[in-house]
Amino acid sequence: MGKGRLEAFSDGVLAIVITIMVLELKVPHGSDLASLRPLLPVFLSYVLSFVYVGIYWNNHHHMLHAARKVDGGVLWANLHLLFWLSLFPFATAWMGENHFTALPTAMYGLVLLMAALAYRLLQQRIIALEGPESLLARATGADRKGKLSPLAYLAAIGLAFVQPWLACALYVLVALAWLVPDRRIESRIEGS
Amino acid sequence: MGKGRLEAFSDGVLAIVITIMVLELKVPHGSDLASLRPLLPVFLSYVLSFVYVGIYWNNHHHMLHAARKVDGGVLWANLHLLFWLSLFPFATAWMGENHFTALPTAMYGLVLLMAALAYRLLQQRIIALEGPESLLARATGADRKGKLSPLAYLAAIGLAFVQPWLACALYVLVALAWLVPDRRIESRIEGS
Amino acid sequence: MGKGRLEAFSDGVLAIVITIMVLELKVPHGSDLASLRPLLPVFLSYVLSFVYVGIYWNNHHHMLHAARKVDGGVLWANLHLLFWLSLFPFATAWMGENHFTALPTAMYGLVLLMAALAYRLLQQRIIALEGPESLLARATGADRKGKLSPLAYLAAIGLAFVQPWLACALYVLVALAWLVPDRRIESRIEGS
Amino acid sequence: MGKGRLEAFSDGVLAIVITIMVLELKVPHGSDLASLRPLLPVFLSYVLSFVYVGIYWNNHHHMLHAARKVDGGVLWANLHLLFWLSLFPFATAWMGENHFTALPTAMYGLVLLMAALAYRLLQQRIIALEGPESLLARATGADRKGKLSPLAYLAAIGLAFVQPWLACALYVLVALAWLVPDRRIESRIEGS
Repeated sequence: MGKGRLEAFSDGVLAIVITIMVLELKVPHGSDLASLRPLLPVFLSYVLSFVYVGIYWNNHHHMLHAARKVDGGVLWANLHLLFWLSLFPFATAWMGENHFTALPTAMYGLVLLMAALAYRLLQQRIIALEGPESLLARATGADRKGKLSPLAYLAAIGLAFVQPWLACALYVLVALAWLVPDRRIESRIEGS
Repeated sequence: MGKGRLEAFSDGVLAIVITIMVLELKVPHGSDLASLRPLLPVFLSYVLSFVYVGIYWNNHHHMLHAARKVDGGVLWANLHLLFWLSLFPFATAWMGENHFTALPTAMYGLVLLMAALAYRLLQQRIIALEGPESLLARATGADRKGKLSPLAYLAAIGLAFVQPWLACALYVLVALAWLVPDRRIESRIEGS
Repeated sequence: MGKGRLEAFSDGVLAIVITIMVLELKVPHGSDLASLRPLLPVFLSYVLSFVYVGIYWNNHHHMLHAARKVDGGVLWANLHLLFWLSLFPFATAWMGENHFTALPTAMYGLVLLMAALAYRLLQQRIIALEGPESLLARATGADRKGKLSPLAYLAAIGLAFVQPWLACALYVLVALAWLVPDRRIESRIEGS
Repeated sequence: MGKGRLEAFSDGVLAIVITIMVLELKVPHGSDLASLRPLLPVFLSYVLSFVYVGIYWNNHHHMLHAARKVDGGVLWANLHLLFWLSLFPFATAWMGENHFTALPTAMYGLVLLMAALAYRLLQQRIIALEGPESLLARATGADRKGKLSPLAYLAAIGLAFVQPWLACALYVLVALAWLVPDRRIESRIEGS
C-alpha cells in the first residue's frame, strides 16, 4: 500500500489545524492599540502552537520519508495522532483566552502529552512493520528526545497548578529542543 | 482519466470535514472544570464522528487503490458521497449540543445512512466500470458489512425516538465493526 | 512549467469552498423539528451551490487534464476563477438566509455569471497557449453550453427582481445541463 | 529530501488562508443594498489580500520549481513564511472592518513587511543550499523588486499614520508590480 495518500491526508489536516488556530484571534472592534492588547496572550499561544504543529509536520515528514510501506495499523495510528493534533486549536484558544490560568494551561499540556504518545505509537507501529534493521529503526535509535518529552509534559501539567508560567516555560523549552528537525534520520538517509 | 485528482480532492474535503468538526467545541469563557463539563457531549460526538470520517477515509483509500480507472459517473458518485460526509459537522454538533436527544440522534443516523448508501453506490459504479472480474469486485465479494450497516442505521433511527442512548450504542458498534480496514481488499492486492 | 501544483492548489481551494459553505448551516438551539425548519432554505441553497462547485471541479479537472502546459497567464486566469468561486459561500448564505428574496438571488446569479466568465477566460487562455489544433481546442469546439450559460445567468439576474423563484429555477436548470461532465473532452482524450 | 511534500503543505496552507479570509465577509441580516454597503471596505481589503496571497503562491511556485533540493532549514524558513501569511486573514479583517483607519492599516503593512522578509529569507536559504551557480541564484539576480518591496511597506506603515489611503495606494502599487510572475525564473528555466 502506498504512503502517498497518507502523507497527503496528514498534510491536509495539519495545514487546516495550523490555519484555523488563527481564527481564534478574533478581530477586535476598536482600532487603537488598547483594543489589540487583550489579544496578546491569544497571539502568544498561537505562536507556540504554530511552532508545535510545525515540529509535528516536520518530523512526520521525516518519519514517513524513512518509511518504506504502511498498512492498516499505520493508517489508524496516524489518524490517532491527527485526532490529538486536531484538539490543538481548542486547547490553544482556551489557554490563551484565559491568560494562562492553571487548568487551561494543564489541559494544553495534556493535549501535547497525548500527541507525543500518539507520535511514538505511530513510530513504533512503522518500525514493527519494517523490522529492527530498517532505516527508521536505526535512525531513531535511543530516541532520547521522544522519551523525555512526555515526562516534561507530565511535569508541566503538575506545575501548571502551582505556577502556570513555569509550565509554559517548559512547553517553550521542549519546543526549542525539537525545533531542530530529526537530523539523525536526515543523515542516515543521506548515508544510505 | 486519472484517479489521482479524485483522491486529492476527496482527501482535501475529508481533511476539512474532520477538522472543522472541532470548531463546534466552542472555547468556554470560564477556566474551571465546571465550564468544561457542558462540552463533554459535544466532545463525545466529535470523537464518534472523527472515527467515522477516519473509517470512510480509510476504506475510500482502499477502494480507490483497488480501482484501475474512473469516469464521469464515478466522479459524481464520489461527489455525492462527499456531500453527505460534509453534513457530518452539522449533524455531530446538533446531536452533541442537544445532549443526544431523540430527533438530533435520529438525524445523525440519517446522515450516516445516506453516507453509507452513497459509499455503496460509488463502489457499485466503480465495479460496473471495471467488470465483475476486477480486483475490486472480487475483493468486495458478498460485502456483508456494507449490507448490514444501513440496516443497523435504520434500526438506530427508530430506536432514537424510544431510547436515544441505544441508538448511540448502535452507532458505536457499527463503527467498531468497521474500524478494521477492509482486509479483504488489502489481502487481495497483496495476493495479486 | 508543470500543471500539477496548479491542480493541487485549485483542488485545495475548491475543497475548502465546498466545505465551509456548510458552516452557514448554523446548529439550531432547539432539538425539535420546528427549530430545523428555518434552515431549509439555507440547506437548499447549500445543495445548489454544492452541485455548482462540483460541476466546476469536474470540468476544471477535465480541462486541465486536456491541457499540456501552463504559463503565468494561466496561473492568474485560474486564480481569477478561484476568486469568484470563493464568493460562493457568501452568496449562498445571503440568498439562503433571506429566503430567496430579490437582491440576494440576483447577487447569487452575478457570482455565477462572473465565475462562468472567468472559466471561459481560463479556457481561452489555455487554448491560446496550446494552439487551435490542440486537444482542448478541438474538444471544446463550439462550446454552446459555455456560451449560453452566461446569458441564462443574465436573464436570471433580471428575473430575480420580478419573481426570484423563477431565477432559482433557471439556476437549477443550468446546473442540470452541466451535470453531465464534458463528454466531448472525455471522448476526444480516449480517441487520441 | 523531496520538495513535493513541502509544496503540498504550502499549497494547503495558502489555499486555506485565501479561503478563510472570505469568512470575514459576514452575511448581513437585511436583504437590501443598504445592508450590503458596510461590507464594501471588507470586500476591498479581501480583494487586495486575495491578490497578495495569489502573488505569494505564484512566486513560491516558481521558486520551488527552480529549487533542486530542500533541507531542514528550508522547511523551517518555509514555515516561517507561512506563519506571516497565516496572519493575513486577521490583518485584512481588522483593516477592512475599521474602514482603513491608521493603526489597522499600518498593521496590515507590518504583516506584508514580515511576509516579504520571510520570503527573502527562504529564497536566500535555498540559494545557500544550491550554490551561487544554481538556476535560482542566476534567475533571481539583483532581485530589485524583492529589495524595494520591504522599503515600500515601511514607507506605507509610516504613511498610514498620516493618511491611511496613501498607504493603501502603496499596497496596491506594490501588488501591481508583483502581479507579473517572476519571468526571470520562467525564462531561465525554459532556457536551461
